[in-house]
Amino acid sequence: MREEMLVSILNDLNGSSADIEASAVISTDGLIIASVLPATLDEDRVGAMNAAMLTLGDRSAQELNRGELEQVMVKGSDGYILMTHAGRDAVLSVLAKANAKLGLIFLDARRAAEQIAKIL
Amino acid sequence: MREEMLVSILNDLNGSSADIEASAVISTDGLIIASVLPATLDEDRVGAMNAAMLTLGDRSAQELNRGELEQVMVKGSDGYILMTHAGRDAVLSVLAKANAKLGLIFLDARRAAEQIAKIL
Repeated sequence: MREEMLVSILNDLNGSSADIEASAVISTDGLIIASVLPATLDEDRVGAMNAAMLTLGDRSAQELNRGELEQVMVKGSDGYILMTHAGRDAVLSVLAKANAKLGLIFLDARRAAEQIAKIL
Repeated sequence: MREEMLVSILNDLNGSSADIEASAVISTDGLIIASVLPATLDEDRVGAMNAAMLTLGDRSAQELNRGELEQVMVKGSDGYILMTHAGRDAVLSVLAKANAKLGLIFLDARRAAEQIAKIL
């Protein structure tokens, strides 16, 4: 039931922009809670990479006096990975194309993360 | 001589916005090449955290089909860390305040990174 609600939020998010290729809700220890991924992406790999980035992002934010971790963005030549905290125990990860309008992706991700935090 | 030129670029960058608190040029293995940091930040710590984020960012971008790593951003409740590749062997890291206008910081950082890449 909760998983269906989460998948519905992810479907809405992926549908909100043609530039969003995949999204997932991941526990802070790297386990997938819900996901809408293309067949080319492996759930476990997405979970593991996101969890590692979060752990290190958290540590970096603390060590460099940036406070509590809220978001991590990785930009590659072929697109973006955007991780946004959805409450304390989970993270929304969004994969977007290289030509994505970043402001819009940030906005949509933050709104979806707030909805997800309420459900979890 | 090159270090002076780099420090001059960093000084210009830090002076371009009151929201930029610190900046540094770091080799991809985490050694500081040049930096303009406040006394509250330790050079070695900045280098180490940036190198770790870059290594993992690089790996994440590859594993999640995002191509070659270009930037990593960490947003905390008290501010941003923005890492931008400056050529192959170095990275420009910028620390900005929480209320920074992100678009402007991205733009200034990318321009500075291009200048740095030419010098290195």
